[in-house]
Amino acid sequence: MSRATVRVEVPGDSLFGPENMPYGIFAPPGGEFRVGVRLGEFVLDLAVLLDDPAFAQPDLNSFLAQGPTSWRVVRERLRELADSPLPAEAVHAFDSIRTALPVRIGDYVDFYASLDHATNLGRLFRPDAEPLLPNWRHLPVGYHGRAGTVVVSGTPVVRPCGQRRTDSGAPEFGPSRRLDIEAELGFVVGTASRQGEPVSVDDFGDHVFGVALVNDWSARDIQAWEYQPLGPFLGKSFATSLSAWITPLAALARARVPLPPQEPEPLPYLLGTDDHGFDIDLAVTWNGETVSRPPYARMYWSPAQMLAHLTANGASIRPGDLYASGTISGPERDQRGSFIELSWGGIEPVTVGDAPHTFLTDGDEVTITATAPGTAGRPIGLGAVGGTILAAHEPGPQEFRSAG
Amino acid sequence: MSRATVRVEVPGDSLFGPENMPYGIFAPPGGEFRVGVRLGEFVLDLAVLLDDPAFAQPDLNSFLAQGPTSWRVVRERLRELADSPLPAEAVHAFDSIRTALPVRIGDYVDFYASLDHATNLGRLFRPDAEPLLPNWRHLPVGYHGRAGTVVVSGTPVVRPCGQRRTDSGAPEFGPSRRLDIEAELGFVVGTASRQGEPVSVDDFGDHVFGVALVNDWSARDIQAWEYQPLGPFLGKSFATSLSAWITPLAALARARVPLPPQEPEPLPYLLGTDDHGFDIDLAVTWNGETVSRPPYARMYWSPAQMLAHLTANGASIRPGDLYASGTISGPERDQRGSFIELSWGGIEPVTVGDAPHTFLTDGDEVTITATAPGTAGRPIGLGAVGGTILAAHEPGPQEFRSAG
Repeated sequence: MSRATVRVEVPGDSLFGPENMPYGIFAPPGGEFRVGVRLGEFVLDLAVLLDDPAFAQPDLNSFLAQGPTSWRVVRERLRELADSPLPAEAVHAFDSIRTALPVRIGDYVDFYASLDHATNLGRLFRPDAEPLLPNWRHLPVGYHGRAGTVVVSGTPVVRPCGQRRTDSGAPEFGPSRRLDIEAELGFVVGTASRQGEPVSVDDFGDHVFGVALVNDWSARDIQAWEYQPLGPFLGKSFATSLSAWITPLAALARARVPLPPQEPEPLPYLLGTDDHGFDIDLAVTWNGETVSRPPYARMYWSPAQMLAHLTANGASIRPGDLYASGTISGPERDQRGSFIELSWGGIEPVTVGDAPHTFLTDGDEVTITATAPGTAGRPIGLGAVGGTILAAHEPGPQEFRSAG
Repeated sequence: MSRATVRVEVPGDSLFGPENMPYGIFAPPGGEFRVGVRLGEFVLDLAVLLDDPAFAQPDLNSFLAQGPTSWRVVRERLRELADSPLPAEAVHAFDSIRTALPVRIGDYVDFYASLDHATNLGRLFRPDAEPLLPNWRHLPVGYHGRAGTVVVSGTPVVRPCGQRRTDSGAPEFGPSRRLDIEAELGFVVGTASRQGEPVSVDDFGDHVFGVALVNDWSARDIQAWEYQPLGPFLGKSFATSLSAWITPLAALARARVPLPPQEPEPLPYLLGTDDHGFDIDLAVTWNGETVSRPPYARMYWSPAQMLAHLTANGASIRPGDLYASGTISGPERDQRGSFIELSWGGIEPVTVGDAPHTFLTDGDEVTITATAPGTAGRPIGLGAVGGTILAAHEPGPQEFRSAG
């Protein structure tokens, strides 16, 4: 059998050059899901290129669990391979492959780390009270979401049904009328910690493998009625979309930026010697039009602080755990990362396709992309996260049984 | 090789007779973890007795995923085997085996389904407001907990550290001073549902395999400071204990009882033709003394309603998902399922071992047991859930780096 080789040509202005190389799970035409990295308009098949059964798995978890030394060694090897002739069967055109959820997610936590977002939501949900609650500047507020309904980018999202308030005081049940997005960054845990042993801010890079884009779809009417006192539940749990490609932290070394000032100074367990944010610029497109450009660099709490807080009580983490930043919003209107903020609760519509929009309509498509300064002095891209809204599956009367 | 056989003798007053036979994961001395059922003071080794590789797994998930027909067939076969001579290597003394977490938990949800508990907690956490929030009688309030820190009964629990309010307004960090229990019933999901397709109240028995006891350890000082607006997080996520033995719903057919009146009538998606509660009596022992007997029969929302609500927005369920009832409390003081209720926020101590107790002290041991009417006209037992509190792992100053 001949061993045809190819060289992957990457244009100099590609957002996915050899200094990026995000990891994902893909299937070539007719093939099984396995691990690959994106390089330009191609995907390199690590199950073929590297001699490690972890790369033949249908999720990244085995590779993630190998830890930072392995992540570094593999990345160095891939940088060499990117410059070498490769076996043709190890190189697939990006537009020929299918993707799957890149990680088998253990626990999914969502934070609330944007000062602008938390302030906006406080004003909208609790108009008669101080928008920022007393705990917000002391700890990264967060909650657990539903890991089993995280879906890969491209999966359609069925409009959820649920209870919402009515003027009569009694709630009614039906398809959400205030379906929204939340543009977020997600952090993928690689190595585990032991129950009872917190992870310090400085140990962030030993445990977190990389970064993804997240759309935390939110039904605001369901959420507003249900969320007290135990937090969001059905308003969020129907679907959360995750990008197919995970950018390793190593690719984001040049994207590190100082955190905004934190006042008051956080408690010692939230401080490290080298803590930082990321200069990542998101773009939210709604039916193809860019409606917002949320700036991650402004986030109040750092990813390392979120992890230190998450584990401060001894809670353990596992390979494949995902935690997200919460909606990323900046101070300007066109920097808001949710439509409830962008349309100010639905009263200030956004123009999309020449028509006023507030919340999501069936058939709407939302895609979030992002770029960051790369290590080669050019920007790199994060994998996109997108999804289309399908009409609610509304139960007919015959689907409920009589109460007798 | 001789095939020695034994007959398992079960005293007539055993809580674990052949009409019970809960499932768990156990390891015989020197052996691997596999599936067994408890019968009297013995454990039957299903990996030996039944010709199905699902029983050689270190969790129940494969068996659970087989669905209700398989659950019924296996149970009938085990009833026959319980009356038959068995190969000696398939029978282990209960006190010789080790147990492990019986299920690989996908998502863990905790509800808040006791009217008495929700009213008590509302009074304690929000003394100046109506204790029951407006949504409580319309939907089973719930939230997602941390699946990765659910531990099997017997696992010690390290006292968590965290932030708590101080009189100065700024929080401090340290070991929880108000460490508490929550006595709950847990429901183990067997068969999956598809994302976008709700599970009706009447389909409860097609999806839920069985019942366990849960202790949702809670750090009340951490919880009180963090829980607004997104609900409990670090106050709960450090550990949740699960009984090692899962009682199949089939063993609880005689324990079914009508639900308490629900006023106002729930929305149609929360109604079924045959909905019911369970007449299960819990007992909470604190350092060996019974301090409370929470009655599950009084729970306001049924397990089937909790599942219908959890999935009403299209959220899917997976084999091994766990949802718990929330603290079970009755109207009497000695029926309260948490110590914050039992000691009324710490101001009315409980006498344990001749000394006043409010919250948990290092070294304290709490065990929750339960019984229910069995199908043979005698009570059956649920597997116990117990744990001992270990001192906090308090970080020394050298464990935090300077903020520079």
